[in-house]
Amino acid sequence: MDIKNYMQEIGKRARRAARLMARAETKAKNDALLKIADIILAQQDTLLQANQNDIHAASENGLDAAMLDRLELTRKRIEEMADGLRQVAELDDPIGKITELKQRPTGIKVGQMRVPLGVIGIIYEARPNVTADAAGLCLKSGNATILRGGSEAMQSNLAIASCLRQGLNAAGLPVDAVQVIETVDRDAVGELLRMSEYVDVIVPRGGKGLIERVSAEARMPVIKHLDGICHVYIDDRADLDKAVKIAYNAKTQRYGTCNTMECLLVAEGIAKQALEKLGPMFKKANVEIRGCDRSRKLLPYIKSATEDDYRTEYLGPIMSLRIVDGLDQAIDHIEKYGSHHTDCIVTEDKDRANRFLREVDSSSVMVNASTRFADGYEYGLGAEIGISTDKFHARGPVGLEGLTSQKYVVIGDGHIRT
Amino acid sequence: MDIKNYMQEIGKRARRAARLMARAETKAKNDALLKIADIILAQQDTLLQANQNDIHAASENGLDAAMLDRLELTRKRIEEMADGLRQVAELDDPIGKITELKQRPTGIKVGQMRVPLGVIGIIYEARPNVTADAAGLCLKSGNATILRGGSEAMQSNLAIASCLRQGLNAAGLPVDAVQVIETVDRDAVGELLRMSEYVDVIVPRGGKGLIERVSAEARMPVIKHLDGICHVYIDDRADLDKAVKIAYNAKTQRYGTCNTMECLLVAEGIAKQALEKLGPMFKKANVEIRGCDRSRKLLPYIKSATEDDYRTEYLGPIMSLRIVDGLDQAIDHIEKYGSHHTDCIVTEDKDRANRFLREVDSSSVMVNASTRFADGYEYGLGAEIGISTDKFHARGPVGLEGLTSQKYVVIGDGHIRT
Repeated sequence: MDIKNYMQEIGKRARRAARLMARAETKAKNDALLKIADIILAQQDTLLQANQNDIHAASENGLDAAMLDRLELTRKRIEEMADGLRQVAELDDPIGKITELKQRPTGIKVGQMRVPLGVIGIIYEARPNVTADAAGLCLKSGNATILRGGSEAMQSNLAIASCLRQGLNAAGLPVDAVQVIETVDRDAVGELLRMSEYVDVIVPRGGKGLIERVSAEARMPVIKHLDGICHVYIDDRADLDKAVKIAYNAKTQRYGTCNTMECLLVAEGIAKQALEKLGPMFKKANVEIRGCDRSRKLLPYIKSATEDDYRTEYLGPIMSLRIVDGLDQAIDHIEKYGSHHTDCIVTEDKDRANRFLREVDSSSVMVNASTRFADGYEYGLGAEIGISTDKFHARGPVGLEGLTSQKYVVIGDGHIRT
Repeated sequence: MDIKNYMQEIGKRARRAARLMARAETKAKNDALLKIADIILAQQDTLLQANQNDIHAASENGLDAAMLDRLELTRKRIEEMADGLRQVAELDDPIGKITELKQRPTGIKVGQMRVPLGVIGIIYEARPNVTADAAGLCLKSGNATILRGGSEAMQSNLAIASCLRQGLNAAGLPVDAVQVIETVDRDAVGELLRMSEYVDVIVPRGGKGLIERVSAEARMPVIKHLDGICHVYIDDRADLDKAVKIAYNAKTQRYGTCNTMECLLVAEGIAKQALEKLGPMFKKANVEIRGCDRSRKLLPYIKSATEDDYRTEYLGPIMSLRIVDGLDQAIDHIEKYGSHHTDCIVTEDKDRANRFLREVDSSSVMVNASTRFADGYEYGLGAEIGISTDKFHARGPVGLEGLTSQKYVVIGDGHIRT
């Protein structure tokens, strides 16, 4: 198989489909989403069978239990996929909206119209539900999608993509608006990342290794998500109850997510009261704390934190802890060790809250709320294609609007430039 | 000189300065801009002397007259630089603005705050005024700038940068918010394009060769501007007078600009009337027309157009011409041969106008107005750092807002996720 030629053909078909998708009516796009949901439910036995084939091959190849779990489709997960598509159908269509046209001194009227990005390449790992979730968001935002899932999920992904293409066809939209790369050859990814004439943006969804490879090789923009080293800073003007509740929730509500707190900063003036409560709570929850010297005087049973600890995204029941003099030192710490993902201050002092919001350079900055709120659903985006840790284009949770751009619209009545 | 080390130090200083710039008050930034304008005027003899040194060396090195003209500073051009900075001071400061906070069902309030991109690298060619213009926009939008001008303008650029740094210092802002790369070694550019940890975005300003090199090598996003192959389509429901005025203006008002019309498309139904008027007008203006066979029957004195002609940005008194059946063929032509920069329809038919606006995938789409309007000043951005031909991040003229991003702001009152 000539991989380059194969990928170029996929690219050309995607570009043609993107042009048709860009002018598709909202109703056709919603019809497609609802039809796809129906087809996925109607064909769930086929999906489960394809998935069983993948699971069987994967367990023979020695995939670990966590990977197998991510790979598995169940009737419940299939229902969630269908529900997700129906929810996307209900979201406002961003495409075609024009900002208020403003008249310029020359007499022309100028506004901006929201348009799709074009062709979006999505590279992901084990979870087959990404095939439907990501393609659904791209479809609603008028884009064409090229999907490259994990090789271990190939049968499942092809079965899901077949549902997507049936639904597109039934709604009168081009089936090539969703294409799955049907080879496990890794060169296909390299080729995809070079096809900047056919692919407008790449979204890698997966582990750090994948994202770093994609960022290094892609010849087009990447919406990427690196580390989430999130902080909660308890200011000495914090309400103690809120502080304890937020720090505990930010760490323990879920360990493996990018918006989980990895480091707790506490102002010296409130450290004794706060840690007297939080220390035993974290201990009871089996969270291992690695703290600075000052904190170890208050909680003698915790381990000592190294420099590396402050730079680590544990994604598990471990956290670092540091007592700081106050707001300035907290901000300095976050700037030095953080990953610009999500950081929170707990304080009743409005000026300090505002300084934190303004000066902490993270994709989400919070006052008196758990870092766990940082995601597209909680923010009201309806769904997210990912969380961007970049500043260019979109920052933080990326929903439909992040998959669009704006073009300028100029209306004259015979106006010329003099 | 160890170029890598030299550039890394510039990068580190820029990153530190960017942090201070991000929290700078509007007043301090405006003070700096106004002070820089004063200093540029006060030190114009120094600037002119430095520029004379550049000009002298450049003419000895055999630079052509056009390049020497671009390189030259005059008292008028220095005044324009100072005026430009004062105008930027008057623009609204985008930084720190928060969109309306919306309450979510959980009770948290979510909004977005506009923030700087960080460090912006600008690579440009002969014109020394770019040093002040670009740095001024970056300063107002709270970014730090690393400037790499043409080697032939080094003395001029250093003299202008010195004014910028004096002004920053006088306003209490970090002088390293503007740095000029002081070596002509071309490796410095390669190093700049690799320093993605210190540079958030690159803006190349210059010819196609420069932009292509930067796009190929940069390890960070690039705001880039490629070809402007702009079309005017005269629909058969056009007002003839408007059509003639617009097509003539779009081609002849200035030849060398990216928003100049390069190809005129005329619907068959109006071709005779339109070309009877336009043919002689273009002939009188010494504009060479290269047309399709149908158009040559109406204007026998014009040359024949090749496929290449339709793909060419002439940037001079040459244009291509094609008679099309109607709107669909016009859109197909623009899609096939255009560069997605600026395209215009002249028509009195609202439905056709709307189809053109929606379906033509260009950074500016116009109805009944000259393509020459496509720029930041005409659109009311106040000034522009460039015109983006990409869709990612910013599309079309890029002003202050294009040099910013948005972060999410979440306000709770002890809210946790359940």
